[in-house]
Parts: sequence; structure tokens; C-alpha cells
Amino acid sequence: MPKPERHVLVCLNTRPPGNPKGSCGEKGSEEVFDTLKRMVKERGLADRVIVSRTGCLKHCSRGITMAVYPDNVWYSGVKVADLDEICASHLVEGRTIERLLMPDIPWE
Amino acid sequence: MPKPERHVLVCLNTRPPGNPKGSCGEKGSEEVFDTLKRMVKERGLADRVIVSRTGCLKHCSRGITMAVYPDNVWYSGVKVADLDEICASHLVEGRTIERLLMPDIPWE
Repeated sequence: MPKPERHVLVCLNTRPPGNPKGSCGEKGSEEVFDTLKRMVKERGLADRVIVSRTGCLKHCSRGITMAVYPDNVWYSGVKVADLDEICASHLVEGRTIERLLMPDIPWE
Repeated sequence: MPKPERHVLVCLNTRPPGNPKGSCGEKGSEEVFDTLKRMVKERGLADRVIVSRTGCLKHCSRGITMAVYPDNVWYSGVKVADLDEICASHLVEGRTIERLLMPDIPWE
């Protein structure tokens, strides 16, 4: 498969403790990333979905931030507990999860 | 602007020297990333284009690998010398650069 059916970006940027912006790393994005990678593999999606760690996705205060391309769907406040639904609904069935959608706010 | 007009991913994965897969990091992707970030800022594109560093984009032997979303255009063998054209043609005018396109090959 030349291109992924879906490409999930997970922000792993970490700022020093006490930084006013906060960061996704500080909120546990490494665990979110590792867990999603494992789920995608275990559920047989690894031949059509790529999960990538990224630098800052510019929604620090709303993190953990995730983007799903080419859908161009952005999620905010993602937790490990949301990943089952993200896999089953979005990555398998292509259904956006409304309750997790990033609000239309400027980048930080 | 709630979503970037274009989101450029640059693979910064680095494998140890001698690893048979090679890696984009080994080929200088940190400089490509830094230079593109600077160009985007200098050319006044920073309010509509995000440039993100990522982990492995799974085209190690064809690196340096770059993906542009939501266009879903993938480039291979990107060098610092290509960045002026990537900015001017793709990021400003939306024109894909044919000579840099990643061939339709399986992920690595």
C-alpha cells in the first residue's frame, strides 16, 4: 500500500514543568502514543494506518492533541481511555468522534 | 485559523550508523526541518502552514521523507536545496513537485 489509509499524529512535545503553556508530553502523550501503536497492531490495522509521534501541534492548552489525516480531523484532550473508540469508530469505520473534536480556536 | 492550510511532516527518525535500513536523520533531516521552519516564517507562511517533526514515516531507504497534508502528497529524497521550490510551488501555489514524488512502493 503506497499511502496510509489514515495517518494519526500524536503530539509528544514536552515543555519544562511550570511552563505556562503546558504540553501534551506533560499530560501523558507518550503513553497515548505507545498504546495507540499497540492497538493498531493488535487489531490488524497496521497495514493501512500509520501512527506517528510529532513535535508541537500548536494546541498546547487543549492537549493531548491528535490529528488524523487525510481526513484533517483534530482531536483535543485525548486520553488512553479514548483510544478504543478512536480505533473502532474513526480508524475502522471512518466516523469522527464529535465529543473529542478540537474547537475552532487559533493555534498557540 | 483553526486548521493549517497545509501541514508538512518531516521525518526526523535516526537509526544507529550502519543500520541497513538507514534513516532520514542520518541523511540530514534535522537541517531540512530547521531550514523549512525558518523559510516558512521568513516568507510569511507561518499563519497558514505548520511544519512538524515526526518519528519514522516508513520510507527509510527513500528518505529524506516529507508528507504534505491534507493534500496527501509524499516526497522522497528531499534536500535543503529543494526547500525553496517546495515553499514557492507547493506551499504557496499548491503545485505538486513531480520530480520529488515518492514512488508507489510499500512501506518499510
